[in-house]
Amino acid sequence: MKIKLADEYLQVDQIGWETFEPDFQTGGIRWKLLHVSPEIGSWTVMFHCPTGSTFAPHIHHGPAEGYIFKGEIEIRGGEQVGGATARENGYLYEAAGAIHDRTTMTRETEFMLQMVGPVGWKMADGTQRPQGWAEAQQLWNEQKSELRPV
Amino acid sequence: MKIKLADEYLQVDQIGWETFEPDFQTGGIRWKLLHVSPEIGSWTVMFHCPTGSTFAPHIHHGPAEGYIFKGEIEIRGGEQVGGATARENGYLYEAAGAIHDRTTMTRETEFMLQMVGPVGWKMADGTQRPQGWAEAQQLWNEQKSELRPV
Amino acid sequence: MKIKLADEYLQVDQIGWETFEPDFQTGGIRWKLLHVSPEIGSWTVMFHCPTGSTFAPHIHHGPAEGYIFKGEIEIRGGEQVGGATARENGYLYEAAGAIHDRTTMTRETEFMLQMVGPVGWKMADGTQRPQGWAEAQQLWNEQKSELRPV
Amino acid sequence: MKIKLADEYLQVDQIGWETFEPDFQTGGIRWKLLHVSPEIGSWTVMFHCPTGSTFAPHIHHGPAEGYIFKGEIEIRGGEQVGGATARENGYLYEAAGAIHDRTTMTRETEFMLQMVGPVGWKMADGTQRPQGWAEAQQLWNEQKSELRPV
Repeated sequence: MKIKLADEYLQVDQIGWETFEPDFQTGGIRWKLLHVSPEIGSWTVMFHCPTGSTFAPHIHHGPAEGYIFKGEIEIRGGEQVGGATARENGYLYEAAGAIHDRTTMTRETEFMLQMVGPVGWKMADGTQRPQGWAEAQQLWNEQKSELRPV
Repeated sequence: MKIKLADEYLQVDQIGWETFEPDFQTGGIRWKLLHVSPEIGSWTVMFHCPTGSTFAPHIHHGPAEGYIFKGEIEIRGGEQVGGATARENGYLYEAAGAIHDRTTMTRETEFMLQMVGPVGWKMADGTQRPQGWAEAQQLWNEQKSELRPV
Repeated sequence: MKIKLADEYLQVDQIGWETFEPDFQTGGIRWKLLHVSPEIGSWTVMFHCPTGSTFAPHIHHGPAEGYIFKGEIEIRGGEQVGGATARENGYLYEAAGAIHDRTTMTRETEFMLQMVGPVGWKMADGTQRPQGWAEAQQLWNEQKSELRPV
Repeated sequence: MKIKLADEYLQVDQIGWETFEPDFQTGGIRWKLLHVSPEIGSWTVMFHCPTGSTFAPHIHHGPAEGYIFKGEIEIRGGEQVGGATARENGYLYEAAGAIHDRTTMTRETEFMLQMVGPVGWKMADGTQRPQGWAEAQQLWNEQKSELRPV
């Protein structure tokens, strides 16, 4: 017999920032892992991105939903080159299969993102390195060790 | 052949508040509908809740994830009676099947919630009135008519 | 820290049939509960339906996918009245929000169905009685008690 | 405004088998693509596997559910080496993150599998080649061209 899962409440502003995987970003992006859902494979993250920081090229294998608390994100190069520019107080939905080859934070940015399934980070040799709930949790736990709030 | 869905970007602070369904709340709770996912049946909402406002008793038939921008929510009566109190800058995860019989916003509160599947609002006669992505979209479209940002 | 869920293997032909909730069917429909996913709220069922049996009017609040091992199902009255008729060796996908007011098995039928979220069974007074993974599991456990294979 | 998705009914036994991607199998495994869900990223497949055929090592990034119509599958080497053996008339649930390094069909096997998110096929050089709903649909459409039943 299976039981209802536990509810979770996190005081996000009391959780410290950690450096996000250096292979997946430039410019000092930090993160907090807020939640993982092992059954469906979703995970929820908060990012802090300095001005000019970037995410490595990646594909969202499942849908992603997010909210931008402050700052500005140029997605697929930004709206001036046919991509999108997501701004402070903005909601964003990235459909499963979204290809994000150029993601630049043009201002100091904080945003939250819930992702279903893995992100496939594109390596220089053309291969993909998948990061899903399990890889995210492993990285986070290594970074926070005994300090992680539950 | 099916195609990748479109991405969505909303400037949330440029969307006006509407009154949330009066049968489902007291105290003047307003909402913005940010997103619906018709395939899996999820929907994402922003709520503005005056001090002392309440949601009617309800059950979350699927998981819900949210973020509290400001204010305070006493869930299942709040932590002083064995429930939970979610506060400003807090993340919350409600598991599928969560029963919320007493939900009170003890301060002016704004929070975002992504819900999978319907909420079952409990009526006084013990029956449930389901509200899912379709009912939410219908209410929103009636309220916004031609003005809704896409 | 959360862990990967366990895999599950069931020898379905060694699980006995139980009578499906009498309020939700006529004609002696029996079922086996194969799986519940408490996190996303999905559940997977096998049905055995005698010729002429029917399901009570219902709405699928999330998507449903199934396979018909044998028999014939007239959905929404069947194809002769604008509905669909699903037959032996057929796959079916019911979209979230599908309304099934007339479902008749015109031959002895066995089919499997995976449903995300609850089914809302429509009662004679117009209200809905939700049945999701938790209600299904509770019914099944009461029926199988100590005998249920895991 | 978004609309409810269409329901789908396929007469599976009238759909021809195609050869499954040769990089991902040995022994002549054939497939039919029954359904793709672009929003959540799930896809549903029927496989026909000759005796002794194998799937290449892979990881399921999301959950998978299936039914074995006939035959026998040794998963993770089979039960005699600590894996699992799934047999005719069997239901299987593979949790998100399941690693399947040795999958052999020891008898002529037919099974159906619904997968959420991509399978990461492990190449000889240690990299993963993801196959999700979009890659599956592309392969299928190329194979079936104008002949695909809808």
